[in-house]
Amino acid sequence: MSTTHFGLYGLGTMGSALSLNIAEKGYGLHVASFVAEDTDKFLARADCLGDAFTGHRSLADMVKSMPSPRAIILLVPAGQAVDDSITEAQPYLQPGDVIIDAGNANFHDTRRRATMLEKQGLAYLGMGVSGGEHGARTGPAMMVGGTEAVWNGVRPMLEAIAADFQGEPCVDRVGPDGAGHFVKTVHNGIEYADMQLIAEAYGLMRHGAGWSTTQIADLFDDWNKGVLKSYLMEISATVLRTHDPDSGQPFVDLIVDSAGQKGTGRWTAIEALTQGVSVSTIEAAVGARVWSADRNGRATGAALFAQPRAKVDLDPAVLHQAVLATRIVCHSQGFDLLQAASCEFDWAMDLARCAEIWRAGCIIRSDLLDEIATALRGRDRDDTLAFCPEFADELALCLPALRQIVTTAIAAAQPVPVMMAALGWLDAMSQARGTADLIQGQRDFFGRHGVARVDKPGVFHGPWSDGT
Amino acid sequence: MSTTHFGLYGLGTMGSALSLNIAEKGYGLHVASFVAEDTDKFLARADCLGDAFTGHRSLADMVKSMPSPRAIILLVPAGQAVDDSITEAQPYLQPGDVIIDAGNANFHDTRRRATMLEKQGLAYLGMGVSGGEHGARTGPAMMVGGTEAVWNGVRPMLEAIAADFQGEPCVDRVGPDGAGHFVKTVHNGIEYADMQLIAEAYGLMRHGAGWSTTQIADLFDDWNKGVLKSYLMEISATVLRTHDPDSGQPFVDLIVDSAGQKGTGRWTAIEALTQGVSVSTIEAAVGARVWSADRNGRATGAALFAQPRAKVDLDPAVLHQAVLATRIVCHSQGFDLLQAASCEFDWAMDLARCAEIWRAGCIIRSDLLDEIATALRGRDRDDTLAFCPEFADELALCLPALRQIVTTAIAAAQPVPVMMAALGWLDAMSQARGTADLIQGQRDFFGRHGVARVDKPGVFHGPWSDGT
Repeated sequence: MSTTHFGLYGLGTMGSALSLNIAEKGYGLHVASFVAEDTDKFLARADCLGDAFTGHRSLADMVKSMPSPRAIILLVPAGQAVDDSITEAQPYLQPGDVIIDAGNANFHDTRRRATMLEKQGLAYLGMGVSGGEHGARTGPAMMVGGTEAVWNGVRPMLEAIAADFQGEPCVDRVGPDGAGHFVKTVHNGIEYADMQLIAEAYGLMRHGAGWSTTQIADLFDDWNKGVLKSYLMEISATVLRTHDPDSGQPFVDLIVDSAGQKGTGRWTAIEALTQGVSVSTIEAAVGARVWSADRNGRATGAALFAQPRAKVDLDPAVLHQAVLATRIVCHSQGFDLLQAASCEFDWAMDLARCAEIWRAGCIIRSDLLDEIATALRGRDRDDTLAFCPEFADELALCLPALRQIVTTAIAAAQPVPVMMAALGWLDAMSQARGTADLIQGQRDFFGRHGVARVDKPGVFHGPWSDGT
Repeated sequence: MSTTHFGLYGLGTMGSALSLNIAEKGYGLHVASFVAEDTDKFLARADCLGDAFTGHRSLADMVKSMPSPRAIILLVPAGQAVDDSITEAQPYLQPGDVIIDAGNANFHDTRRRATMLEKQGLAYLGMGVSGGEHGARTGPAMMVGGTEAVWNGVRPMLEAIAADFQGEPCVDRVGPDGAGHFVKTVHNGIEYADMQLIAEAYGLMRHGAGWSTTQIADLFDDWNKGVLKSYLMEISATVLRTHDPDSGQPFVDLIVDSAGQKGTGRWTAIEALTQGVSVSTIEAAVGARVWSADRNGRATGAALFAQPRAKVDLDPAVLHQAVLATRIVCHSQGFDLLQAASCEFDWAMDLARCAEIWRAGCIIRSDLLDEIATALRGRDRDDTLAFCPEFADELALCLPALRQIVTTAIAAAQPVPVMMAALGWLDAMSQARGTADLIQGQRDFFGRHGVARVDKPGVFHGPWSDGT
């Protein structure tokens, strides 16, 4: 088989970083960008790696001048730009060539595009890439969706540029068509929840207990030496330690407290609703971003509602347990969604492999993910991750702490929506008999929906005295 | 203008009830159903109203034999069946005829169908109908989407069959194309939240405090005499008072505690995510149904996690305030979503009119909705409903009670996800300075997203010491 020739289109932050990474691993790379001058600028900055690149004025030019077999990596904004790129490249492609979408595509789009191109004899990979700019440059985590054959054709290059976890590359084929982008979507959903969780712990300490940013950074650094070790914990400490060079203030205090929510976080919540899976912690994190964006509304609310400002008395050890419990629940819900989608779309996904890929290179990398990979490899049933013995014991141990922290937060009017969501899920999911019996009674009363009975099979209507 | 001739297709529970209602108001009605025998059965049961109906063997037969102008009301399951019905009827329709989809369609589908048919010179109304079987028979609330002209053509008949609130019919045009079905969708989202809220209060009293179903029914009846007066409160009392004739047990105890979630509740949450609006209470209610459906999971969880079973000491007056506060937040979030969609789709929706339509006939009818209609008529800004003076004072008064009840529930491991969501929203929306500053710092650190600063305009990167 002849050697694949690689081309990359889209030299933004991620595309540039990934290009340099590919070149550094010894691969020649054709490059082009939407604006031709961006290619010139990129090549001018490529320094000692410059020889690896062949620049082109457009995607069409690049594809035309590359020998087959060709692998064209797209790093353009998700949506229309991907379709436009495919349309531009397609006339010059031939069987054996492959397009790799390495952006944050919606997996439904990836499924559509893969089907369309495969009908025309072309190959398509949807690849989720995580790690931000730094990860893309030095080793990202990558989740690939596509056929085995096509994956095997590009595998050596992707393994060369991927992050490394104890010798194993953090890249793999996780399933066909949209599977790679879906896994990346859920990764980002978990990322939303984990970031919000850290922000909630920060809020309790800062606004509730009145700790300084340095004290909180010290605690996060401490936590980062134990079971909570993760990239997000590490960088949160760094962010909190950073001061504005002009004013000397903690830099975080100068940042407007509004975060956007769109794309992957939202898609995770929408897909969970569609699949009938609960990702309440991720929903809560997406919701918290919506609230954060409504600064005017919050100012109005602050004036209207006098809140208790009881000084919070925080035990860091208790907070640590609450954060750990919540983080386990976030991940458990994310993996529940992966499992549901794998069934729904016949992806036969290896969930443990997903966890393994996430152990290095990506934004949610953490020691917990190594434990999760082990638990998923060992489990013999489809129980939710939180119920696997490895985590159930830890959760049972931490549950009183989570209860205590949420109660403390409520008394102090400090919002902890993700911790609340985790606690709500744990309490509901350990209630063998809930209260949906009343809901089913209501539905049968007004809508004749029918109810199942605990004492006999079948569907029944209640003997309501003044129903219809 | 000649008299419109009405036809109704789909004689299931809702279609049959609506047909009898139409006939009773003096209108002749052509009827047909997917299975021709269902039409025979319906006519055989129509008793003294039978003369009003002309039965047909199929939709096509019905349309063909009706004189113009014709209004064809569809009451078939949402989705493919609506498209199939349109395809079947269309060849026989002519300009001046109208199709009215009275099912629970997804409003995106309604928009698509209206556009398609209008291109062909045919009219389409998407109409949400609420009230269950009883409402459809005796007077439902109806929310109509379509053009003014088409609405005016069918308005007299719809006003005749609608519920009546102090002389005003509970039906109106709320906007073009999909507006009617969207308002119905959000109605159902609020319905999910209100039902779950009542179930949570029930759970606290029953499983937490150990009250009997009769004691709880008595309290609900009491509540139904005051500010919490609503159809759902009334029927919850009735359901709890109903006993199984064979065993004598409270019937609710014989109902399997699993409720489905799909269609409108889910769509409300998905559309809110898409619009970037928070309907956290509705999300929580949809999530609670997902948890309820996983009975095996809950049995496993119950065995794994030993929960505190502290007997709950409940003050009904405090619980009353907590329920009232939560109910206000649920409605406020629902109206936030209506407002956002009205902007997004250029519907110019009269939100107060929506609240007015919901005051009678529909499942969420309540005294609160009359207060809401008044508040929406009077407000001069687009503040969220909860911040209108009428409700802000009430919420400020009830907030300590909500805080107390959620804390009590947490201590007793009784899930109250909708109350939690309401409290979380109130606390976050009254925090002028939140914690998304840290999230923005994290995002800039790993993804170079850029941050806004509180002290100067522009987009900045943090002076991170060991970022990339």
